[in-house]
Amino acid sequence: MITIVAKTKVRENKKQEFLKITEELIQKSQNEEGCISYDLYEDIADPYTLTFIESWEDMEAIDLHNKAEHFMKIVPKLADLTEGEIEVRSYRPAK
Amino acid sequence: MITIVAKTKVRENKKQEFLKITEELIQKSQNEEGCISYDLYEDIADPYTLTFIESWEDMEAIDLHNKAEHFMKIVPKLADLTEGEIEVRSYRPAK
Repeated sequence: MITIVAKTKVRENKKQEFLKITEELIQKSQNEEGCISYDLYEDIADPYTLTFIESWEDMEAIDLHNKAEHFMKIVPKLADLTEGEIEVRSYRPAK
Repeated sequence: MITIVAKTKVRENKKQEFLKITEELIQKSQNEEGCISYDLYEDIADPYTLTFIESWEDMEAIDLHNKAEHFMKIVPKLADLTEGEIEVRSYRPAK
């Protein structure tokens, strides 16, 4: 299992737009083969810090996800709604 | 639901000790009232970055967790095994 934590800062006037266009991304990603969970969170201390926390069965499922039509259509649009870099960390169970 | 992402850097020679003493913390936390999930991960790009990802029903469950005997016994010991600050972010579903 691979868990991805992808943290970004949404522009204050773009949050609702970000939530709107990621609805489809989230729903379709959750239905993908190999997707264990795929959710969007906001930081309680800073509601403009938005973080996807996703768990996938393996790297193959993630590769398919990154080539999925909904991913390629929606994710590029998010850059205009956010500021600074998206911080993406990929995790596996600690051993 | 509240999801906590707590990221820390373990000293290279202390990782196995960290994993050993957090086994009890993880098992007992998972069995706590209000705990949805409680797991320890390592960053694939840097296996000395260890991150707890925990989901709790509400703040009350977290407060009880922070006063639990296993939490108070084990968590203080982790400071000696890690370097720098632990980064803790608390999230709720984005809205």
